[in-house]
Amino acid sequence: MLSFLSSCSPKQQRKAATKPTTAPSPLITPKLDPNMSAFDKIFEYVDANEKYYIDRLAEVVAIPSVSAEAARRPDVVRMGEWLVKELKALGATVNVHHPGKQTIEGQQLDLPPIVLGTYGTDPAKKTICVYGHYDVQPAAREDGWDTDPWTLVEDAKGRLIGRGSTDDKGPVISWLWVIAAHQKLGLDMPVNLKMCFEGMEESGSEGLDEFIIAEAKGDFFKDVDAVCISDSYWLGTKKPCLTYGLRGVSYFMVEVSGPGKDLHSGVFGGIVHEPMSDLFAVFSKLVSADGKILIPGIYDDVAPVTDAEDKMYGTLDFSLNDIHEAVDSKVTIHKTEKEALMARWRYPSLSIHGIEGAFSSPGSKTVIPAKVIGKFSIRSVPNMEPAKISELVKTFVNAEFKKIGSKNTLSIDCGHAGKAWVADTNHYNYVAAEKAVERVFKVKPDFIREGGSIPVTLTFQDALQTNVLLLPMGRSDDGAHSTGEKIDKENYIGGIKLLAAYLHEIALVA
Amino acid sequence: MLSFLSSCSPKQQRKAATKPTTAPSPLITPKLDPNMSAFDKIFEYVDANEKYYIDRLAEVVAIPSVSAEAARRPDVVRMGEWLVKELKALGATVNVHHPGKQTIEGQQLDLPPIVLGTYGTDPAKKTICVYGHYDVQPAAREDGWDTDPWTLVEDAKGRLIGRGSTDDKGPVISWLWVIAAHQKLGLDMPVNLKMCFEGMEESGSEGLDEFIIAEAKGDFFKDVDAVCISDSYWLGTKKPCLTYGLRGVSYFMVEVSGPGKDLHSGVFGGIVHEPMSDLFAVFSKLVSADGKILIPGIYDDVAPVTDAEDKMYGTLDFSLNDIHEAVDSKVTIHKTEKEALMARWRYPSLSIHGIEGAFSSPGSKTVIPAKVIGKFSIRSVPNMEPAKISELVKTFVNAEFKKIGSKNTLSIDCGHAGKAWVADTNHYNYVAAEKAVERVFKVKPDFIREGGSIPVTLTFQDALQTNVLLLPMGRSDDGAHSTGEKIDKENYIGGIKLLAAYLHEIALVA
Repeated sequence: MLSFLSSCSPKQQRKAATKPTTAPSPLITPKLDPNMSAFDKIFEYVDANEKYYIDRLAEVVAIPSVSAEAARRPDVVRMGEWLVKELKALGATVNVHHPGKQTIEGQQLDLPPIVLGTYGTDPAKKTICVYGHYDVQPAAREDGWDTDPWTLVEDAKGRLIGRGSTDDKGPVISWLWVIAAHQKLGLDMPVNLKMCFEGMEESGSEGLDEFIIAEAKGDFFKDVDAVCISDSYWLGTKKPCLTYGLRGVSYFMVEVSGPGKDLHSGVFGGIVHEPMSDLFAVFSKLVSADGKILIPGIYDDVAPVTDAEDKMYGTLDFSLNDIHEAVDSKVTIHKTEKEALMARWRYPSLSIHGIEGAFSSPGSKTVIPAKVIGKFSIRSVPNMEPAKISELVKTFVNAEFKKIGSKNTLSIDCGHAGKAWVADTNHYNYVAAEKAVERVFKVKPDFIREGGSIPVTLTFQDALQTNVLLLPMGRSDDGAHSTGEKIDKENYIGGIKLLAAYLHEIALVA
Repeated sequence: MLSFLSSCSPKQQRKAATKPTTAPSPLITPKLDPNMSAFDKIFEYVDANEKYYIDRLAEVVAIPSVSAEAARRPDVVRMGEWLVKELKALGATVNVHHPGKQTIEGQQLDLPPIVLGTYGTDPAKKTICVYGHYDVQPAAREDGWDTDPWTLVEDAKGRLIGRGSTDDKGPVISWLWVIAAHQKLGLDMPVNLKMCFEGMEESGSEGLDEFIIAEAKGDFFKDVDAVCISDSYWLGTKKPCLTYGLRGVSYFMVEVSGPGKDLHSGVFGGIVHEPMSDLFAVFSKLVSADGKILIPGIYDDVAPVTDAEDKMYGTLDFSLNDIHEAVDSKVTIHKTEKEALMARWRYPSLSIHGIEGAFSSPGSKTVIPAKVIGKFSIRSVPNMEPAKISELVKTFVNAEFKKIGSKNTLSIDCGHAGKAWVADTNHYNYVAAEKAVERVFKVKPDFIREGGSIPVTLTFQDALQTNVLLLPMGRSDDGAHSTGEKIDKENYIGGIKLLAAYLHEIALVA
């Protein structure tokens, strides 16, 4: 199924792979000393079945579950159905919640189902809710991938390359392997597991918050003691981490229009107000080259730095070189690790993503685009509030547009927004995870925050009134959202062990 | 072949059309009074064969000869071959010149052939060289066309809709119908005709200038007395025009790069220099919302306005409403017709066309694009020099980039450039054309300049040392380069008569 290509040149090695059309490698139940600890039995079992787990990952990577594209909605649904089938086969109780409809690319489509699995209802055990997402970012070979994004390929460095390998299919299916391993080994699960997998995380998690809030005291969520989410990354490439903070995200779309249709720039250049000129004038006022957001008031609610926080940065296993390797270049803004981490974790940032409606192909075209939609997003931090961010941004953008005196029309919309989040790391949820990391990786984890956003984290914390742990499986250079996304085999297999160990540690420390 | 849809609703009327799979309507030779003038015989003949001419236009519109796209190169070549075949069938002597190769979309392709037809070599006659192009702009239904761009459709208002209908296939094939009409009517052509049709006009006319300059004293061009180009538009929609000036065009591509690959804006937002932020900062300095180019020195060489020029604007058949109708909105910059015409004809303009390499699809994506190419072009006027424009632009762009202090890399390239052009309207070439317009349309034409560019115009003037006449066939609202491009049936059929009448008037006045 998946070919390991060590005998070819590096470039060749990444290229030859097969789509999973055949059955996965068979499951192996190794002979184990019955006196081994549950931890050791599980770890041996997982190691023995590496091929199987990789084959199954290839199977799910091959389902292009891109939530942002209307044409791929059936694939997203298909991926959800795959999870339902696997969970049922494991003996879990499975329900699906249909969050409603959305309008995407002018079409009305059903939102993908939220898959809800319950495995174990023993009142004597803690109940852990795990969340993940089965949808993925868009990907096209021509974006710059060396191999087909939808065909998992293992390279000579043991990296499993494919869209969704690390974000978030590897972690999601690992929870299934944890249950299956216990069954095969005749081990009792140490906790009850509530699995909540959605299919819209990459597109704003429409319908999810409402569901969690509405069901917080319902059958599925009411007994949940703690939540665990595996959908983030180590700070670097060597040391495991636990993540206790995320930035929020507010996504803005700014449409400038005026001419009734695209125009010839010779015939009309200089005599009409051009939407592109207007968009560039306004967007150039948003952020400076060194990353400072120029919107008045945007920094007002940022929490001040405490002495404890200030000292913490020096204790982490991280160097600027980690960023250089992850971005494959040296265009970092800051001179010190501390400044870089503070910029990523506890200060907001603004990125301009692109323009819809202008000329974007190779070559030249002398067009005046009639209607353009510029897109940017702000990553927010405690104690910034999305509603206030939106107000500040809209006020500023409208004011800047008014200043330029164009006859065109500008409208700004906040597509989706989620608040930042920070957890209490003294809770047993984090204590258990720390011990689990030590058990699997033989080293204490670094406690880190994340630059990215997983909005549902805050929803779980507030609605369920529980601690939420982010337990990353992948490395900083995994390239989530980029070309060549991968998860290291070490991290995937080690990750299955880690999730299992965490659940056992919960039972020991909680 | 082409269906006329008067019995349906307007929207339906535009939708039902057929691709030309059947033979065109048959040619008709009407019974004509032998005492009629040559002009009247030709006009009657052309009127009688309207269906045939429209069917043949549908045939060539269906060949998607897009020079900007590598995948369509065979279609461009096919269109050139169509012309060769038709010219040979008419008894013209036909040669093709292969201008060499180009690299497009990373591929090395042959440039489309320059088709050279000679009809008549009588030393007693004037020799007129006519130029046109058989390639077209890109077009896709999803850009906003109501009908398939490659299927000519006639609507209830007698507009023939399809990519290339007016730019430039209608005019190009009209020269063929002029020859054919003379043959069918047994009339002697009043001049020798040299036809020069290229397939790269929409993509910078690569190889054409070199060919004309090299061959200026060669067999094909040496006896040319005057040049006529039909590849532009009336100032408005009612009154025919002769065009005696064009703007030049200088196309710039600005690449900003830095990160080694596209990045996740959560993980890296705020810690790397972002190419998009840099691009917006620099491009926002190029032009103001009211069309003023902000590059220092760019206006220095613009020719001063004379009294005669100043008075001329008030004599033209034009209103701001013509622009409003053409752009289907009211976002014009100026308050008076004179200011608008001066901005289009005799002042430079700068338009930003788009960005390659960023996120351009519908929906949202939280990406930091790693490498972006921003594209803009400047329309130039007498006495601006392309080499100086390029230097001013590059100096300015590099300086502005340096100011922002980014670690990214910017490189700027001038893709293609052509100088502005103004003709001597006292020459017999223009006198003959003016009389021809009066003969066909019963009104004297307005003498106008154009906002757009046809770089070969200046090449012909300088290399052949002859007068060049621009004789537009279409109307200001034809939508060349836009969606819904059309030529009015009146203009196409009237245009065939006009081209024929012009050649006869040359023989009378030259």
